[in-house]
Amino acid sequence: MYIKKQRLLAPGPTPLYPPAVHAMMGSDIHHRTAGFQAVYDRVLTDLKAVFGTTQDVLPLVTSGTGAMEAAVTNCFSPGDRVIVATAGKFGERWAEIAKAYALAITLVERPYGEPLPAEAVAEALHAHPDAKGVLMQAAETSTGVEHPVREIAAAVRPTQAILVIDAITGLGTMRLDIEGWGLDVIIGGSQKSFMIPPGLAFVSLSGKAWDASSRARLPRFYFDFIRERKAAHSGEPSWTPAVSLILALGEALRYIQTLGMGQLIENARLLAAATRASMQALGLELFAKSSPSAAVTSVRAPRGLDSGAIIQEFHNRFAATITNGQGSMKGQIFRLAHLGYYDFPELFATIAALELILAARGIPVDFGGGVAAAQAVYASAAGIRTA
Amino acid sequence: MYIKKQRLLAPGPTPLYPPAVHAMMGSDIHHRTAGFQAVYDRVLTDLKAVFGTTQDVLPLVTSGTGAMEAAVTNCFSPGDRVIVATAGKFGERWAEIAKAYALAITLVERPYGEPLPAEAVAEALHAHPDAKGVLMQAAETSTGVEHPVREIAAAVRPTQAILVIDAITGLGTMRLDIEGWGLDVIIGGSQKSFMIPPGLAFVSLSGKAWDASSRARLPRFYFDFIRERKAAHSGEPSWTPAVSLILALGEALRYIQTLGMGQLIENARLLAAATRASMQALGLELFAKSSPSAAVTSVRAPRGLDSGAIIQEFHNRFAATITNGQGSMKGQIFRLAHLGYYDFPELFATIAALELILAARGIPVDFGGGVAAAQAVYASAAGIRTA
Repeated sequence: MYIKKQRLLAPGPTPLYPPAVHAMMGSDIHHRTAGFQAVYDRVLTDLKAVFGTTQDVLPLVTSGTGAMEAAVTNCFSPGDRVIVATAGKFGERWAEIAKAYALAITLVERPYGEPLPAEAVAEALHAHPDAKGVLMQAAETSTGVEHPVREIAAAVRPTQAILVIDAITGLGTMRLDIEGWGLDVIIGGSQKSFMIPPGLAFVSLSGKAWDASSRARLPRFYFDFIRERKAAHSGEPSWTPAVSLILALGEALRYIQTLGMGQLIENARLLAAATRASMQALGLELFAKSSPSAAVTSVRAPRGLDSGAIIQEFHNRFAATITNGQGSMKGQIFRLAHLGYYDFPELFATIAALELILAARGIPVDFGGGVAAAQAVYASAAGIRTA
Repeated sequence: MYIKKQRLLAPGPTPLYPPAVHAMMGSDIHHRTAGFQAVYDRVLTDLKAVFGTTQDVLPLVTSGTGAMEAAVTNCFSPGDRVIVATAGKFGERWAEIAKAYALAITLVERPYGEPLPAEAVAEALHAHPDAKGVLMQAAETSTGVEHPVREIAAAVRPTQAILVIDAITGLGTMRLDIEGWGLDVIIGGSQKSFMIPPGLAFVSLSGKAWDASSRARLPRFYFDFIRERKAAHSGEPSWTPAVSLILALGEALRYIQTLGMGQLIENARLLAAATRASMQALGLELFAKSSPSAAVTSVRAPRGLDSGAIIQEFHNRFAATITNGQGSMKGQIFRLAHLGYYDFPELFATIAALELILAARGIPVDFGGGVAAAQAVYASAAGIRTA
């Protein structure tokens, strides 16, 4: 039919920063050369600046899930008890990993769509003083909810447990003061706010987590934080690095630092606020009643309409990828992302497309009504006066 | 300060077709090899299919202006009379080129913003039976106007003159039946509907034009159609070809053929109709009162506002490139392009951005009002019923 440009509007992989893509074209270099070494060294330095920590940030060649598993195998020993705090599909993944290594699991569970209350984690820690760790997400991608990381960290800090945070979606979409709040293990992923393709994950450990790591006896080989730290200090990657992704990351980190991590977060938060205002203007129900994530907005499909139909229409009409609910919310919600390299015109386009899709499915819509609500958020932030 | 993605919304260079960009990465090949030869052969064949002609289409390594000059030097002799039909900056360029070669020029002029009447060209031909050529644009990019090519061709056909058409913007945005209408010289450019970067131009000649070419005695060397035709028949480019652009063109031509040239034109025409509806919904005055081009819509800046301010705001707020008026219309109009690799979501984004820009400049605007008018055009074309 007509021209349809591919658009990535999913909460990962996210749109790519073009200079990062271009940098990947320089991948025909060997990684044991001074040229690559210089890029790698700068990446290691810039990762620390972007994470906002003085600790090492270890880049691993893996998907996010591999880094989650690595955090478990590098921080715990057979039979250790961990508290898994979960309110969504990625929380459940922590439980699956802990189960795969036969750890003793205490679940702190909340329904999909709710944030985890810090008190519930505190109670679990109180009931299980033997707990060696608390595993959670900073933002639960499957539901579009942010968890109260700071408050939970305050509950974990006085205990022997370490707080292990999957911040793959959280980094760059919410404030995470790693050292100030005492976040012990922080995991990031290349395909989110880092604006590059999937394939790299990042892990940073606190002193408390490094101590735990030195005692951890779960079996591991490829993912070995102590060896990775030595490698980072020598500037020589332990295994063959993903050359193209490191080159891309070098460009993206430079951009993120130019923008400022605070501005990157503010960008996502403003887009999220505009998205929520749009959805409400269109009469749609937000799935996260409180503590919505700035990474992704989850929206209930209108009554009688499977959310999969909306996702399919985005694909068929506009070659755009938005995402369905995950786990138990599949078919009930759709999710619009606004993290990383995403801007207002893209949001306007997405909302205008959604309005057409709703109309095509027989839902009454005022064309432009959702867009106008998003424009009002931009105008207010940009100091544009409206009549 | 927030993230701003670069957006090309100019009537050339236009947005690039990604697989064409990716193909450019294969440029480290020599052009006198079987591998490149195969690509080049297919490009020559596909160009004919996309132009819709059985005649050769010659790819030249040049900007469009070079191809315009080449058409003059390859078709005329010292002292020849040419009728230059002009109603804009690119029409004036024909006059400049003809003047540089000291041809005798008869101007058929209309004000910026108007189409050229076929009768005026017919009268000039009648008054100057010695005229060897008529030089014109298919679509005048500077004003966003389409000229009545078919009617003018009908006036030129019975005379000795050849009709030389700069269709750089016209190709892919309007129907041009080269052989059916008798268009003698047709010029295209890579950076328009061909969706690739600037650097290539394309020329196709009718039998009548080839006859003229065989008699033409203006001085020339690099641009020599007869040598280029021989080169095309041998499959060996006469000079070093722009390897990266030929590789890109190969991908783009494949895409255009999959889409269909008719659909490519229809895509631009529908986007143009939606743009015009939007501008009118916003209370803005269209510059082309009749025969608007589907390539680019020119719009008068609101009273008291220099159009340069709108262009600057697009750049500053959204990193987007739209264009000012050219020649005598600079500062008075702005131009929104919708040719080539351009789709509806991009248009929605552009219009929402324009609404914000007008509001920022104190022009009363109903947010979403322009977007809604464009959505209505999409809905109608896509058979979406609205309440």
